[in-house]
Amino acid sequence: MSKSTKLEWRAQEEFFINLEPLQRGGVVPAESRKIALSYIDGYSTCDHCLGTLHILKKPPICDFLGEVADFLGMDRAILTHGCREAKFAIMHAITKPGQAIVMDENKHYTSYVAAERAGLKIYEVPSTGYPEFKIPPEEYINTIEKAKKETGELPALVLLTHVDWTYGNLVDAEKVGKICKEYNVPFLSNTAYSSGRMPIDGKEVSADFVTCSGHKSWAAGAGVVGILAINDEWTDKVFKPSQRYKVKPIEILGCSARGSSALVLMTSFPYVRERVKHWDEEVEKARWFSSQVESFGDVAQLGDKPHNHDLMRFETPVFDRIAQKHKRRGYFLYEELLKRKIVGIKAGKTKSFDLSTYGLTKEQLGYVIESFQDIINKLS
Amino acid sequence: MSKSTKLEWRAQEEFFINLEPLQRGGVVPAESRKIALSYIDGYSTCDHCLGTLHILKKPPICDFLGEVADFLGMDRAILTHGCREAKFAIMHAITKPGQAIVMDENKHYTSYVAAERAGLKIYEVPSTGYPEFKIPPEEYINTIEKAKKETGELPALVLLTHVDWTYGNLVDAEKVGKICKEYNVPFLSNTAYSSGRMPIDGKEVSADFVTCSGHKSWAAGAGVVGILAINDEWTDKVFKPSQRYKVKPIEILGCSARGSSALVLMTSFPYVRERVKHWDEEVEKARWFSSQVESFGDVAQLGDKPHNHDLMRFETPVFDRIAQKHKRRGYFLYEELLKRKIVGIKAGKTKSFDLSTYGLTKEQLGYVIESFQDIINKLS
Repeated sequence: MSKSTKLEWRAQEEFFINLEPLQRGGVVPAESRKIALSYIDGYSTCDHCLGTLHILKKPPICDFLGEVADFLGMDRAILTHGCREAKFAIMHAITKPGQAIVMDENKHYTSYVAAERAGLKIYEVPSTGYPEFKIPPEEYINTIEKAKKETGELPALVLLTHVDWTYGNLVDAEKVGKICKEYNVPFLSNTAYSSGRMPIDGKEVSADFVTCSGHKSWAAGAGVVGILAINDEWTDKVFKPSQRYKVKPIEILGCSARGSSALVLMTSFPYVRERVKHWDEEVEKARWFSSQVESFGDVAQLGDKPHNHDLMRFETPVFDRIAQKHKRRGYFLYEELLKRKIVGIKAGKTKSFDLSTYGLTKEQLGYVIESFQDIINKLS
Repeated sequence: MSKSTKLEWRAQEEFFINLEPLQRGGVVPAESRKIALSYIDGYSTCDHCLGTLHILKKPPICDFLGEVADFLGMDRAILTHGCREAKFAIMHAITKPGQAIVMDENKHYTSYVAAERAGLKIYEVPSTGYPEFKIPPEEYINTIEKAKKETGELPALVLLTHVDWTYGNLVDAEKVGKICKEYNVPFLSNTAYSSGRMPIDGKEVSADFVTCSGHKSWAAGAGVVGILAINDEWTDKVFKPSQRYKVKPIEILGCSARGSSALVLMTSFPYVRERVKHWDEEVEKARWFSSQVESFGDVAQLGDKPHNHDLMRFETPVFDRIAQKHKRRGYFLYEELLKRKIVGIKAGKTKSFDLSTYGLTKEQLGYVIESFQDIINKLS
């Protein structure tokens, strides 16, 4: 029997509490699951093709994208395979190899790799380092100046990671946007961990481009899917069509995410639009969770304090000391949590770990806190 | 209520016979549907991340990709979001803007758009035109020579559409590969409509690259997913890792298809590996279907004759004459078929239409033939 037919890895985590930071914002509501299933049998979004996906009326992808653009405070939006593909599409469309790009040190690795793929020279805005790792918006000025000095021209693009995946720090995009406007450089706000969770207004922060992750933050974890939103003035460059196939945008090779990932994103949208209104409750829960966990002693939440997001990194000497003496070493925590039907903290991690509280109830989080305490009591 | 919450477009075609040429090879077996559903809730392939998708052991993506490379007669394979993204990745990795690419006139539009995105000068190998639209392999010589003459160098890449989506013509890839070898130009065989349906051996046809479509031909229609297979000598260029993130291939921005689309492709693979052994039966069925439909009179199958593939285009004056007088004009055929629970022929098409017989039983196809005849008898 071939190795890939051994399916013992089939997900059994359905009834578990999942704290995985990448996944909480992508959890798919029941209605969207049904849609995904009905689109899983070879019947695709292409049944009523009008030449390209983003103008489709049935399913109403065109209307949906208009609503998404409004929701983001931008003029136009198209689907991409993911947020990284949206970032690369922008870079490839508006920059030339050898030009400079400015991005924050807390960026997702894909921002860096996309810039490498586009042949750009990468300048990083440094964070304040341990323990808060903040990106001060005004630091963008220094980095833009540095890039200008070294390359002889302004950077071709400035990228901000609105909320970073490591510390869950929220940066003031409006200030960065204002700096970009003053320099007259295009501004990309990467909202992979913010849009779909919290309200976003691209216009308010003077963004030229907003990129989003459906599977990370728009309750569309069925597949991978992203959104690329732009302001009108960039239409000709970023949504440029093929010379021969006039309806096919070159940067998404005609059509990108289609089939169940697009459908799930769309079906989840009313739910997402509603949930962002309750963002303050999510922040409140995250702060409460953080304070409870810190109260164990020998635990410290890194990043913004008080915290402004559900993504958190904790330094956890309290668990690391147990790992030193435990026969399962660093794996004990993962295994102890698994026994308690809690997953999502990386196996082997005890010095520090990342988690997200997004969309979990206070009762569920209370159970997680009790479980941590229980493990400490049992093994310390 | 927002437009995108009107879900009356939800697929109800499950119990219909679907002849849609894009979709027949992507129909997902039951086992894979279960997998897709279990991976639809935010629990992703990334639970046991080792830094990048293609080396993953749990789920066994690394083993799977090794088996896929063997299955294709190639050295290495990685996942891409789709076949078009695989083609662009190759072009972007091994060519420079301004260089020439040679491709066949029957190519999928995405080959053309990918080349445009890569800034390439496109030279097309002409087909023989109506009614067979064949691509004679030896015509590649003329086009390579033309590109060489006009650009002053050999083309940077030669692309063959092994089976085209319009006529379902099968081109002798071995001959094209031999020509490329003689010219010492890299050869990409685009097998979007062949691999996964019929046996493929990249080595045998001297392919440097093989691109595949999971949702079109590997029973993985749940999302969109492609495969990029290469020979070892191209590893450094096409699978080149990021300078900083050593495990992340630049051309797929680290990781591409992940989540349910990758899982479905993997779960369907044992089924796909088995089904390609029965390709001769599919060809036999297609030929039988074609001859039955042609026997109505005033219908002609275009492309290869006898046909070598399940994709077929028919010229259908017999239906077009009905359309001239019918109050629903060209839409009558779609509607008459729909009444009989047959879908997949584009609404409004009566001069000619495309379909696929892939994976349908002879009984189902017999019912389609009877339905056509019934419509002709009733309305002529």
